[in-house]
Amino acid sequence: MTGKAVKLEVADQIAHVILNRPDAFNSLNPDFWAEFPAVFEEIEARDDVRVVVLSSTGKHFCAGLDLNSFKSINAPSDQDEGRKREAFRRHLLDLHERLGVIERCRYPVLAAIQGACVGGGLDMTVCADMRYCTRDAFFVVQEVNIGMAPDLGTLQRLPRLVPPGIARELAFTGRRMYGEEAREVGYVNRVFETQAEMLDAVMEIARGIAAKSPLAVHGCKELMNYARDHSVADSLNYVAVWTAATLVGGKDLREGVGAFREKRDVVYENLEPIQPGRRPHDD
Amino acid sequence: MTGKAVKLEVADQIAHVILNRPDAFNSLNPDFWAEFPAVFEEIEARDDVRVVVLSSTGKHFCAGLDLNSFKSINAPSDQDEGRKREAFRRHLLDLHERLGVIERCRYPVLAAIQGACVGGGLDMTVCADMRYCTRDAFFVVQEVNIGMAPDLGTLQRLPRLVPPGIARELAFTGRRMYGEEAREVGYVNRVFETQAEMLDAVMEIARGIAAKSPLAVHGCKELMNYARDHSVADSLNYVAVWTAATLVGGKDLREGVGAFREKRDVVYENLEPIQPGRRPHDD
Amino acid sequence: MTGKAVKLEVADQIAHVILNRPDAFNSLNPDFWAEFPAVFEEIEARDDVRVVVLSSTGKHFCAGLDLNSFKSINAPSDQDEGRKREAFRRHLLDLHERLGVIERCRYPVLAAIQGACVGGGLDMTVCADMRYCTRDAFFVVQEVNIGMAPDLGTLQRLPRLVPPGIARELAFTGRRMYGEEAREVGYVNRVFETQAEMLDAVMEIARGIAAKSPLAVHGCKELMNYARDHSVADSLNYVAVWTAATLVGGKDLREGVGAFREKRDVVYENLEPIQPGRRPHDD
Amino acid sequence: MTGKAVKLEVADQIAHVILNRPDAFNSLNPDFWAEFPAVFEEIEARDDVRVVVLSSTGKHFCAGLDLNSFKSINAPSDQDEGRKREAFRRHLLDLHERLGVIERCRYPVLAAIQGACVGGGLDMTVCADMRYCTRDAFFVVQEVNIGMAPDLGTLQRLPRLVPPGIARELAFTGRRMYGEEAREVGYVNRVFETQAEMLDAVMEIARGIAAKSPLAVHGCKELMNYARDHSVADSLNYVAVWTAATLVGGKDLREGVGAFREKRDVVYENLEPIQPGRRPHDD
Amino acid sequence: MTGKAVKLEVADQIAHVILNRPDAFNSLNPDFWAEFPAVFEEIEARDDVRVVVLSSTGKHFCAGLDLNSFKSINAPSDQDEGRKREAFRRHLLDLHERLGVIERCRYPVLAAIQGACVGGGLDMTVCADMRYCTRDAFFVVQEVNIGMAPDLGTLQRLPRLVPPGIARELAFTGRRMYGEEAREVGYVNRVFETQAEMLDAVMEIARGIAAKSPLAVHGCKELMNYARDHSVADSLNYVAVWTAATLVGGKDLREGVGAFREKRDVVYENLEPIQPGRRPHDD
Amino acid sequence: MTGKAVKLEVADQIAHVILNRPDAFNSLNPDFWAEFPAVFEEIEARDDVRVVVLSSTGKHFCAGLDLNSFKSINAPSDQDEGRKREAFRRHLLDLHERLGVIERCRYPVLAAIQGACVGGGLDMTVCADMRYCTRDAFFVVQEVNIGMAPDLGTLQRLPRLVPPGIARELAFTGRRMYGEEAREVGYVNRVFETQAEMLDAVMEIARGIAAKSPLAVHGCKELMNYARDHSVADSLNYVAVWTAATLVGGKDLREGVGAFREKRDVVYENLEPIQPGRRPHDD
Repeated sequence: MTGKAVKLEVADQIAHVILNRPDAFNSLNPDFWAEFPAVFEEIEARDDVRVVVLSSTGKHFCAGLDLNSFKSINAPSDQDEGRKREAFRRHLLDLHERLGVIERCRYPVLAAIQGACVGGGLDMTVCADMRYCTRDAFFVVQEVNIGMAPDLGTLQRLPRLVPPGIARELAFTGRRMYGEEAREVGYVNRVFETQAEMLDAVMEIARGIAAKSPLAVHGCKELMNYARDHSVADSLNYVAVWTAATLVGGKDLREGVGAFREKRDVVYENLEPIQPGRRPHDD
Repeated sequence: MTGKAVKLEVADQIAHVILNRPDAFNSLNPDFWAEFPAVFEEIEARDDVRVVVLSSTGKHFCAGLDLNSFKSINAPSDQDEGRKREAFRRHLLDLHERLGVIERCRYPVLAAIQGACVGGGLDMTVCADMRYCTRDAFFVVQEVNIGMAPDLGTLQRLPRLVPPGIARELAFTGRRMYGEEAREVGYVNRVFETQAEMLDAVMEIARGIAAKSPLAVHGCKELMNYARDHSVADSLNYVAVWTAATLVGGKDLREGVGAFREKRDVVYENLEPIQPGRRPHDD
Repeated sequence: MTGKAVKLEVADQIAHVILNRPDAFNSLNPDFWAEFPAVFEEIEARDDVRVVVLSSTGKHFCAGLDLNSFKSINAPSDQDEGRKREAFRRHLLDLHERLGVIERCRYPVLAAIQGACVGGGLDMTVCADMRYCTRDAFFVVQEVNIGMAPDLGTLQRLPRLVPPGIARELAFTGRRMYGEEAREVGYVNRVFETQAEMLDAVMEIARGIAAKSPLAVHGCKELMNYARDHSVADSLNYVAVWTAATLVGGKDLREGVGAFREKRDVVYENLEPIQPGRRPHDD
Repeated sequence: MTGKAVKLEVADQIAHVILNRPDAFNSLNPDFWAEFPAVFEEIEARDDVRVVVLSSTGKHFCAGLDLNSFKSINAPSDQDEGRKREAFRRHLLDLHERLGVIERCRYPVLAAIQGACVGGGLDMTVCADMRYCTRDAFFVVQEVNIGMAPDLGTLQRLPRLVPPGIARELAFTGRRMYGEEAREVGYVNRVFETQAEMLDAVMEIARGIAAKSPLAVHGCKELMNYARDHSVADSLNYVAVWTAATLVGGKDLREGVGAFREKRDVVYENLEPIQPGRRPHDD
Repeated sequence: MTGKAVKLEVADQIAHVILNRPDAFNSLNPDFWAEFPAVFEEIEARDDVRVVVLSSTGKHFCAGLDLNSFKSINAPSDQDEGRKREAFRRHLLDLHERLGVIERCRYPVLAAIQGACVGGGLDMTVCADMRYCTRDAFFVVQEVNIGMAPDLGTLQRLPRLVPPGIARELAFTGRRMYGEEAREVGYVNRVFETQAEMLDAVMEIARGIAAKSPLAVHGCKELMNYARDHSVADSLNYVAVWTAATLVGGKDLREGVGAFREKRDVVYENLEPIQPGRRPHDD
Repeated sequence: MTGKAVKLEVADQIAHVILNRPDAFNSLNPDFWAEFPAVFEEIEARDDVRVVVLSSTGKHFCAGLDLNSFKSINAPSDQDEGRKREAFRRHLLDLHERLGVIERCRYPVLAAIQGACVGGGLDMTVCADMRYCTRDAFFVVQEVNIGMAPDLGTLQRLPRLVPPGIARELAFTGRRMYGEEAREVGYVNRVFETQAEMLDAVMEIARGIAAKSPLAVHGCKELMNYARDHSVADSLNYVAVWTAATLVGGKDLREGVGAFREKRDVVYENLEPIQPGRRPHDD
């Protein structure tokens, strides 16, 4: 599946999502907003995926929103001011949904970042489960450099990923944070010299994840997503009922322990694909 | 728009959503689950709606889920137990979304209920903004009568609508609550002798709402939805920024105050229709 | 203390706060907004108050915001649209603070309501601890009748005081709710034939409260305020440490139990007055 | 099992918990605090219980805490003031746990109340799932009458059961609320002329509940407990995973639907007893 | 504006708040508590400030509370124990408000720290947006060294700024954390050799922030403050309505994008000053 | 007190809890689950403890759950699927309680970790207040290596202790994190070459803590536990009432300040022991 802005390659149970407008520095244009959620819908509908790698082409990972995006915000119109803003709020919530597929995806999403990752590009990578980058990668809260506060997730997620004092400095100054600093503050897990080296390593990590029980891995992601936004007490109660539902009587633990003991390869079933548009109770 | 299970009639800026399988007591079958959210998407996409009335045909408002729905839950299969439950959880979340259109709809939804409103029918009406019923209407938490706990919203919403001790009695005993009791405990706002009388009165209330600023009415609904799930302090902060966005500089307050002072009819614009599938930044 | 809009009378340890612009139906004008919080500051600074009664003069309790208040919202200006709204949000938060003195006051506030209690008047009485009214009192969510959603607290507090379906009907339709209905749905505690009768009865209730330990009564209010916005578990933890601080080793319980056993009058100390503007550590 | 303060009778899958110190008006003394949680532990450990009825003997349901309980709060001691309060806080949390068995019990608890239900008695009945009372029953927030704020749950739970304005009036004034008013405000579900009549009716309701699937009933209780303290969105997510765990593949729905269709008696298994002190993984 | 304890200097749109009792190691005395919030009120009332730098004079940033502050806590008095504690709780809430001006200030606050930053000094810097320090700066949770738990914010904010295990070690042991460790654990953003060097660099950062849109910067701060205490879902909803209010139709984005494209200097308007004491609706 | 799995040694007011099944790599077997909470109950019941050190014997800190633990999860049985899972959920909640004694203990718990700390061992150390380890220690989210998601606390607590991207990588890949990396990401506070060196240093830290006011230290722990799960505003309110209860009028601050000024040794009283099973109001 190759769109105008996003390409999907699947191999070895790894879905590789590739931003594919290198000439435009992979800026987020209407094509991107349409294709990106569609690619994740495709991933969830397949029965051969267990992990997702998100990477990009060309010199820069993502230059942020296409500047044309901002035209309509200030376009003169005779639309009522209140209705205009009611519509704009929904527009932003819609964009949140479209980026949020990363977080809602049942499979871990590993972002591999080179060059510029700015503005909307940062809004995208804060959604990923793990981030890896090249040494020359740099991250910028670009919005403040053009007169606005980020509105697509960076301010909401970044201060939980790096020390809040760093997140605020980045947001207020619009300065660059390069790869090595990104690793030191915990934004990325590892730094690589080249994009090729990075992709090799990230694919290796992804293959490792693909070899685990996809149900266990999905559980880990769901439960950590949940724990981020709930108290520890609430989260412990949730894991108890989640585990009662997904572990008891299932095949994975038996297979996992068996393989562990017998030191043999382990074989897990895939998750049930999600068929979009399928009506409930069809079978 | 007339589907197999749900019919939509629009007049006087009132969208009338009608359950239309009277012979099956309007039980919730796959047609319903497909058509119901589609009808609300249609409502939001139109530019001639400001309020929604939800009613039903035949002797009973809704008999709940079609019993065939339950077959698959216990169907023997060789699917892994864990994966089966992971899928079933998502299935329920999907049904929640499908009923949740009532709550997320920008316009108030007034439910007019006759006869039986049981099981899934109750799950539906707990989502409505206001409820009205006939004297012979009766409400039943039917699930407990067939060996299960309600899983589509009744347990989550009912105890905020009626005294919790009543909600619990209904849930544990599966007994009938008739119209007059429903009014006394606050579940319905008014009780009528006949369905015709009820529809007349509900349409009259709906016309009154349709004459108000749809932006103000949408604000009321959004802000009360928000307040239900947040602290008062949070909710006050939210109304401040909401009002800053939607009221300042807009036409409605000027028009409203003007008409009020001049004792003339008031004219408000409709909300901007929501065009499904439209990509962001298209204009 | 008698201001242009609000009058304070103190007797028998009851602070009587009286809206005092009957000719303007006690609409909320700049004088009100300045004097109302000042009156409550005075109440907290006195050492002879244990309970507050809030009443009004003339035919109507309160006609809501002075319509002049709305002028500036739509006044043309060359102020930047964003800054205008940033300022308006703070303006609303400021008004919330000014009405919120009712809720934050350490002493119970009993509202005694006659005639119209509409718009801002409703925003005010939803803050009170208890409400009493005359039979001909009526409550209106007036804002929706002039093209706006209430922005001063009604939408945030009313749905916790009356069945949500009623709160929504009132908000969407702008209809009147008269005294008897207000009592049935739980908004007011009792209904009286005349204002004089009401004031007699409310003063009687207030005298009863003034005879209790003001520390215990303050605790009840603080703990119920807290419980409204927190889980039961959180609230139980809070009452434990609150009681450890305020009950253990204090005089009130000993005095209370002693008087109870000896069937004699009980004597409690007042709370420590709050001296506004006093710097910490002054003694 | 008959203790000095609490008696347990089990028949027809109904556990009848009886306060049994009528001469002391069933005031809560050390025996009560020890036996009450023990009785509920016994109930959970049995395999013949599906519902609990909580009643009392003599003229009054419960006169609240034994006045001797309060002695130590003010007893002079040379214990450090801070440590004294640290210990007292834990003491209250411990009492919360002991009353909280009502709420945590997997089975519904129906309280049947005659005569006085004051102070600690009210703290107890606010924990019950449903409340029923005689016409001459009366409820008093007694604490404020002896110089203290309730510290065992009334302030935390009552304002969610009755209109907050009523809850506050009761807390501030310490006045009596009789049976009929209690029903009107939603505190009790029904009022009866005599205790005998009440017990007959409550037992009849209990028998109805005992005939339902205990797993479904437990689910209803757990899910409504959860919903009380969480947002609707959180609660819907919780019911989805709860249902995936407890309904799918189980026997109850099949049995329930089968019996419903065949119009025959329904047979459900009991819940697994909870064996106190049993170490995990023992089998 | 120069007080006895705090000095304010404004230049280049930077408000420089200076602790100015070097001989007393800038300990927090009554003068400080009075002047500090007044300085921030002044900052918000000016129209020439966009960012705040908080620094100190002499060898040490701040030695914490003046030890005289603690006298009254243990002073013998015949005040009722309960009332004494009710008053003390309010006293602490008042101090929280006075330090909280840092967090509530619409402009970023950059703390520049030399020498000792202990006790109340730490309570102050945990409120800042970003922290910078000299190599010989050291941070101490001093309270535990004099027999008390910190009560002014350190325990509430520090564990979100540094790894919780470090925060706890500091709190339990009262040990020193020097500049370099503070940077490694994320408490400060950068470490400098001398105070002069630090102030130069911090002023440079401040100038950069002052050149941004103050509305965008205020938005970043408000939205990150909000996100710290809410779920990601809540925070995303909030940013949507916030942006609808402050960005749409405003001048800053147009100016920002324009200057960005034309590579010219950017000119933003200041925020509207906050006039303290001004009554609402005055114009 | 020496059990089959856990040993307790008390000296110098330090309770040393030692995992003591080195031959089984201290895996968590039924003996552990029984003895571990009992040891903490003993600690709270003693009057000679102010801090806890948790260490282990042999080459590895803890190998996680005994693999026999998993047998019953998949054991064929004719128990109803729903009831089986209801019981399993409670089983997990029970294990949470048993590990949670670390967090609920009034005294800080310092974990000293050598060798493997995997699976259940990690679930245990995430509960500790501070962690220290040897260079060759390694941490593994072992569960994913045997086909399951961790269900005893790691997913709930780890992402708050280390950067979330690291927590997720560990959870999804099951890879080892060695001592030095653990320190860099903030999981442990310090790394040591040998276990002996580590124990010496940890005991030294513990002695320092034991010399502080145990009431102040308990306050720090309670307040940081609370702050982890509540907003800053809530947490500030809590510290105010907590301090009002535990500091005012107590001896510790006077003693602490006095010793500080007089540069003499400080003497604090112990906390009041918690007597398990003691009935309230016994004295």
